[in-house]
Amino acid sequence: MEFVSGVKEKGVLSIHEVTEGDWVGKTIAMNGAVHTIRHMGEVTFVILRKSRGLVQCVYEAGAAGFDIKDLKEECAVEVKGRVAKEERAPHGFELRLEDLKVLSRPVEVLPIPVGKWKLNTSLETKLALRPVSLRNLRERAKFKIQEGIVRGFRDYLFSRDFTEIRTPKIVSRGAEGGSNVFKLDYFGKKAELGQSPQFYKQTMVGVYDRVFEAAPVFRAEKHNTTRHLNEYTSLDFEMGYIDGFEDIMEMETGMLQYVMALLDKEYKKELDMLGVILPDVSRIPSVRFDEAKELASRKYSRKIRNPYDLEPEEELLIGQYFKEEYGSDFVFVTHYPSRKRPFYAMEDPADPRFTLSFDLLFRGLEVTTGGQRIHDYNMIIEKMEKRGMNPEDIESYLMIFKYGMRLTAVWESGWSALPCGCWMNRT
Amino acid sequence: MEFVSGVKEKGVLSIHEVTEGDWVGKTIAMNGAVHTIRHMGEVTFVILRKSRGLVQCVYEAGAAGFDIKDLKEECAVEVKGRVAKEERAPHGFELRLEDLKVLSRPVEVLPIPVGKWKLNTSLETKLALRPVSLRNLRERAKFKIQEGIVRGFRDYLFSRDFTEIRTPKIVSRGAEGGSNVFKLDYFGKKAELGQSPQFYKQTMVGVYDRVFEAAPVFRAEKHNTTRHLNEYTSLDFEMGYIDGFEDIMEMETGMLQYVMALLDKEYKKELDMLGVILPDVSRIPSVRFDEAKELASRKYSRKIRNPYDLEPEEELLIGQYFKEEYGSDFVFVTHYPSRKRPFYAMEDPADPRFTLSFDLLFRGLEVTTGGQRIHDYNMIIEKMEKRGMNPEDIESYLMIFKYGMRLTAVWESGWSALPCGCWMNRT
Repeated sequence: MEFVSGVKEKGVLSIHEVTEGDWVGKTIAMNGAVHTIRHMGEVTFVILRKSRGLVQCVYEAGAAGFDIKDLKEECAVEVKGRVAKEERAPHGFELRLEDLKVLSRPVEVLPIPVGKWKLNTSLETKLALRPVSLRNLRERAKFKIQEGIVRGFRDYLFSRDFTEIRTPKIVSRGAEGGSNVFKLDYFGKKAELGQSPQFYKQTMVGVYDRVFEAAPVFRAEKHNTTRHLNEYTSLDFEMGYIDGFEDIMEMETGMLQYVMALLDKEYKKELDMLGVILPDVSRIPSVRFDEAKELASRKYSRKIRNPYDLEPEEELLIGQYFKEEYGSDFVFVTHYPSRKRPFYAMEDPADPRFTLSFDLLFRGLEVTTGGQRIHDYNMIIEKMEKRGMNPEDIESYLMIFKYGMRLTAVWESGWSALPCGCWMNRT
Repeated sequence: MEFVSGVKEKGVLSIHEVTEGDWVGKTIAMNGAVHTIRHMGEVTFVILRKSRGLVQCVYEAGAAGFDIKDLKEECAVEVKGRVAKEERAPHGFELRLEDLKVLSRPVEVLPIPVGKWKLNTSLETKLALRPVSLRNLRERAKFKIQEGIVRGFRDYLFSRDFTEIRTPKIVSRGAEGGSNVFKLDYFGKKAELGQSPQFYKQTMVGVYDRVFEAAPVFRAEKHNTTRHLNEYTSLDFEMGYIDGFEDIMEMETGMLQYVMALLDKEYKKELDMLGVILPDVSRIPSVRFDEAKELASRKYSRKIRNPYDLEPEEELLIGQYFKEEYGSDFVFVTHYPSRKRPFYAMEDPADPRFTLSFDLLFRGLEVTTGGQRIHDYNMIIEKMEKRGMNPEDIESYLMIFKYGMRLTAVWESGWSALPCGCWMNRT
């Protein structure tokens, strides 16, 4: 019988323990995967890959108690070596190897050179070999940044008194209508995978006032664009006691400022690898839908064909307009036409052809959407009937209006997903 | 054209802004849902419900510019009132109402008295009325604590250099075998909902060394116990470069210590509402499977019927033993029999009838499971063949062994899920 009382230190150092400590001239132990091996005559460089960086190890025959010929790329190893300053090496140091222990070794040679800076392979090959291609530094950097975005999103909303919720992904069929759903059998009953936590979010505002979720959603759309995915991570928040949908744009701007600051502080390494320059979010221009169309139409001499719709090309031109005129990569477009918004969107009392809603465009592409929701029972029933919907289909949802709902506004964003997403899904 | 530059303050105060500021004697604005209304003759108490507590408001006819008869429970309101010290009120203050604005009102009377301390209704009724029953203070407290557990889990692992991953929930059929899966059609191909991120986790250790996920998993098991759910939030982590599965027990203990400290610090209000006393996790006893059976059998005079299995009653007795002998609610049981563990579990070289694995029991109930995984290609192929499995079914997964895998160990836990989970799922 023993007791476990927490993590014991092991004497195997991480990169930041080495760079922050006083180790030059001392022998230390580190571990990692053999990323590349470069034979340079007398010496051999063995580059170890660790979770967020590389470590340069130098092997000299005779000086180390093992044979370099035993080593292969993608071996997992534990090494001992003396720390030396070396400005040309990653993190400014290298290890002069004294010993090396192979913890595990591959049985086959890598099918793609993951140790290269750029993987010059097709997307198809990358996806077919996802477990391996993600070991490439620049491939994995993308999903590390994704981690940072979701982390910043959550942390900011916690600081603003939001509650994190976990809503069901298997829902009863017909709840949201539409044909773009994955259907399944739930013990003999008809069910589908949730396309959005929409109804649950508003419901939970009745419980916690402000809520958010970062979780998978599912859309059974056949597509062949880089704008769509069948399964992705959706970021959602919803808050009550608003004065208007402008509260949501303010919260989103605050969140984006927090996320960018976090990325700059803790994910700089990955941003630099991909050459990403963070956009300025200190202030984001906001413009009405009809005004935005007008501005772009005038400047770029493009005729408005449909005042109630926004074509992809128009989105691009609006993005271009605000980049050129105000230097902003982002622009809020407000007051979308009612016919393009779902039944629960609040119409503008001043002109019911438009809604109290907005999209955020980033370089001419819609990245998030939001708006005020109807909170009144009679109003939502009336709107459903006008659209030929059956209130009985969503009785649970309507319960929240019957028994008192706050004024709420909602926000959502789909972020392109999943480190491994594309690979098993594609089988 | 305007600019949005972040959240503007509104002059409507939160509970902690009131208790931490100097507001006594001053008139302030607050908002909330009307939780209860108690008429006491001359005065009426209006209790507001906010996301994490109640606010007592006092109405005196004549003193306030509105008629109390207009007010109903579950109205959303904004009030103005003078702050007064009042030790018997929640948070030690009350508002003497001067004005009240109804933001929205219910159209029907509540079907259950959510304002009561205990909801004396059946589970069936609670679930059928989930959007409303969760407004009860003690009902919602449970899911607030759930938030804290997941938050602590993530924050601790971030501090230990783990990377958060997002794995696909729609996976190709047959990947994990078993009949307890929800099946669906994926554009004409056979797919299923993931029962666990098991394979992805180990894959991603090859990419980031240490990874975790907190996400939904799906099990199509018909059941009628409180131990199972068809959809729940699974907490998973996996790490490479281990010395043994004991590393995982240490990491788990550290994580539990962090989570309990976070709950104690930031979720005390909710714990107190439910009368929860946090268990001591400063040290957790660890005992071998066969030894644990032996100890319980001797002390409670219960014959061991099967040395390779643990019956629910035995689990309970083992829990009782460590509570009585060591005062611990938790106990690690290690070295589970190979036949009870999946094919990827590492067998104990000293005795291959047992594995290098463990479960954590809490008051006699298995709450988490973990262990060292096979990392060698030939070993895993051999084990699969011995069990009659076809390696071609999980080619993607086996790729990681072919091209070099770390020694890894894995951990998982299912936490009973979802604020709204049971309600729409049950339709």
